Amino acid sequence: MTASAIAAAVATRKLSAKEATEAALSRIAARDGVLNAFTDVTAERARAKAAEIDAAIAAGKSVGPLAGVPFAVKNLFDVEGLPTRAGSKINRDRAPAARDATLIARMEAAGAVLVGALNMGEYAYDFTGENVHDGPSRNPHDPTRMSGGSSGGSGSAVGGGLVPIALGSDTNGSIRVPSSFCGIFGLKPTYGRLSRARSFPFVMSLDHLGPFARSVEDLALAYDAMQGPDPDDAACTTRPAEPVSGLLSQELDGLRIGLAGGHFQTNLFPEAAEAVARVAAALKVTEVIEVPEAARARAAAYVISTTEGASLHLDRLRTRPHDFDPAVRDRLIAGAMIPAPLVDRAQKFRRWYRAKVLELFTSVDVLIAPATPCIAPKLGQATFMLDGVELPVRANIGIHTQPISFIGLPVVAVPIPLEPMPIGVQIIAAPWCEHVALRVAHALQQRGVAAAPAPRGVLENGSRSA
Amino acid sequence: MTASAIAAAVATRKLSAKEATEAALSRIAARDGVLNAFTDVTAERARAKAAEIDAAIAAGKSVGPLAGVPFAVKNLFDVEGLPTRAGSKINRDRAPAARDATLIARMEAAGAVLVGALNMGEYAYDFTGENVHDGPSRNPHDPTRMSGGSSGGSGSAVGGGLVPIALGSDTNGSIRVPSSFCGIFGLKPTYGRLSRARSFPFVMSLDHLGPFARSVEDLALAYDAMQGPDPDDAACTTRPAEPVSGLLSQELDGLRIGLAGGHFQTNLFPEAAEAVARVAAALKVTEVIEVPEAARARAAAYVISTTEGASLHLDRLRTRPHDFDPAVRDRLIAGAMIPAPLVDRAQKFRRWYRAKVLELFTSVDVLIAPATPCIAPKLGQATFMLDGVELPVRANIGIHTQPISFIGLPVVAVPIPLEPMPIGVQIIAAPWCEHVALRVAHALQQRGVAAAPAPRGVLENGSRSA
Repeated sequence: MTASAIAAAVATRKLSAKEATEAALSRIAARDGVLNAFTDVTAERARAKAAEIDAAIAAGKSVGPLAGVPFAVKNLFDVEGLPTRAGSKINRDRAPAARDATLIARMEAAGAVLVGALNMGEYAYDFTGENVHDGPSRNPHDPTRMSGGSSGGSGSAVGGGLVPIALGSDTNGSIRVPSSFCGIFGLKPTYGRLSRARSFPFVMSLDHLGPFARSVEDLALAYDAMQGPDPDDAACTTRPAEPVSGLLSQELDGLRIGLAGGHFQTNLFPEAAEAVARVAAALKVTEVIEVPEAARARAAAYVISTTEGASLHLDRLRTRPHDFDPAVRDRLIAGAMIPAPLVDRAQKFRRWYRAKVLELFTSVDVLIAPATPCIAPKLGQATFMLDGVELPVRANIGIHTQPISFIGLPVVAVPIPLEPMPIGVQIIAAPWCEHVALRVAHALQQRGVAAAPAPRGVLENGSRSA
Repeated sequence: MTASAIAAAVATRKLSAKEATEAALSRIAARDGVLNAFTDVTAERARAKAAEIDAAIAAGKSVGPLAGVPFAVKNLFDVEGLPTRAGSKINRDRAPAARDATLIARMEAAGAVLVGALNMGEYAYDFTGENVHDGPSRNPHDPTRMSGGSSGGSGSAVGGGLVPIALGSDTNGSIRVPSSFCGIFGLKPTYGRLSRARSFPFVMSLDHLGPFARSVEDLALAYDAMQGPDPDDAACTTRPAEPVSGLLSQELDGLRIGLAGGHFQTNLFPEAAEAVARVAAALKVTEVIEVPEAARARAAAYVISTTEGASLHLDRLRTRPHDFDPAVRDRLIAGAMIPAPLVDRAQKFRRWYRAKVLELFTSVDVLIAPATPCIAPKLGQATFMLDGVELPVRANIGIHTQPISFIGLPVVAVPIPLEPMPIGVQIIAAPWCEHVALRVAHALQQRGVAAAPAPRGVLENGSRSA
């Protein structure tokens, strides 16, 4: 059941919040042995919240638009009573969080029921969904494949049908990559749109939080529930909530849509090109828009991420190097040694690039680009061939996502249900125009081009299929 | 004559702009052989501008509040037709500037007459006023002593009576230090208050431009002429002009004034302590306010300055290392190798420090602190003793200015005419409260505590005195 169907059924008493919650807990119990999406199941808390909602409904009180909808969060969100591990071993020694992250509080204020915290790449520095401490979260369509990272558990949980909505974070692609690999919808909103208060950061100037869902309606419902300023996140103090759920069905007439060219039309496996072509055909888009210096934008995003990440983790690198995932530690140590003037230049370039790309949006409303260069690779796969060059998988999965998040543009990743594995496409809009990207995603869903395929990697009894 | 006296005489036809201009050109011709304050004298341009003003007056047109007032600018301001050398050898190869800096245009719109460009420390990375390419600008009270830097020519020209007003820049103290050494008033406004458009930068997040003068009234006149937003400087796009000239005589009753403690009461020669004590006595101030972590603020200002400076000059360091002043080059090269996470942490500290210091300003309106630890050292002096420790002069002259500019607070440096050499005191206010600092400076001037002493280092015939 989708989130909207659950909320409608709960509000009209066709289903109780308790039943919806127990169903989710059962699915988790049955399938998560394979998927490994959850690191914590908050069953007691979920049952209490569900009872509260059912009591409110019984008392004739109004309940929110997500009443009774189970959801889960990447384990870098503060969940009251749990240490915020952010995929790490080291953070497990932290005191339990005293208070929920703002976005959890807002989801619950809308009636949603938190059922747990989700596996992720260590400290969000990851595109694979692999985690040396917790084991990899697995792809719901083929558990021998990556879920994508760093919000791997979020992708796996929604793609695997454990919960209709999950929350994750995206610094360089960590929402869009698992959306693509797990065949679901994901929204990376405009930088500053959704509060990051009480979540564990990676790169403050690049970090975004956002939802995953199996339909555009559900994505919009979750997004609407979470919008609005928050004094606890300095990047998110002024922008008012601008609900989009009612706008999804608006015609696309007049919207100017272009295909991102150059960098975004190279470094692709045929599946990624096919997915973009299907979207282009459905939207009758032929114009190719050159995004200037996108490859350099990616390089600059790397330089800024690794050095700001190193700054964040410097004390931990000094005192507990052996408790890091080696793949994360070594990149952070490298970042700790990058000379500052290079970062300064990367930031200067960023201002230039942002101005240039914003200029493009005076002649176009939406850009279409691949979300990942390939379908989900096999777990443990170290390299792949891109345009004839053998490259490390881990570092290059985000090749098409990094140049977009680098300047905070809103993106909806839409799943194209190819065989044997789905793959995502980025619908990119101008800052604060999430509604435009969501309308296009909705049109693609209505036209049957974008859809979250049923998970085929796990059976109801919890064993792997095939 | 002060700027206000010249402007009044010109407006009432007691003096022509031509006469005022020729008098300034004569003083420059007579004294600059000793002072070495000017690198360019724009006599032709000045005569044309003076003629224009005299013609306007003759035609009964209104002229601005600086009509006929000669002024000069540090040679990092773009002056149409001159290469903007910024104290360097390398920049002399640049094309002549196509257009004046915004602040020059505004001074001239108020009727002021540009008579030349002024000597400065190479690329503004200097507290001494020494320059290996142009020779040192010299102290007007003792030409064997430093003018202070990096706006050394500005301090020397105004302190030596060549022009009543000069403009300079202050990144870590480059207006306040020459004000102190040369015995004149200087205003480093709030970060973002005065446009930096078409000036050669050093550290964009720390650079300020501002005026020097021999009286508070003149300082305010120049400041008022230059205020107002400018789309060409991203840090200066919104703040409206808030003229202060009419407010200088307001009583200080109700103003809460404190002495900056700790860091600002150590690292002082007796002269600096005496100057602060005179100001405190005149204002009847006894309360000492601790500025938390001021020494760390200075360290962070250093880290940010040297790395951003290195970023700015990286290509020049690579291609023309031998054309730099070695003292500047070697510090920039060191900056080029500082790891980025340290700078990130310096920036994080800066946000913390800024919040802490702004908190102080809820219980106090003005802080008093020394401008320099000592009177002007001898030219070439390499070290001095601070609190019993021998330290390099060049690196430590700004010990009390750096923690203030680091967070962009407005400061008026007021000259205390001690014997044998003057020394400055910083009057520090909350952001955008230049008027408060100027009122306090004005009161000190009215009470005879602050005053620009007559230059005793040069005689009218241009030879050195004594």
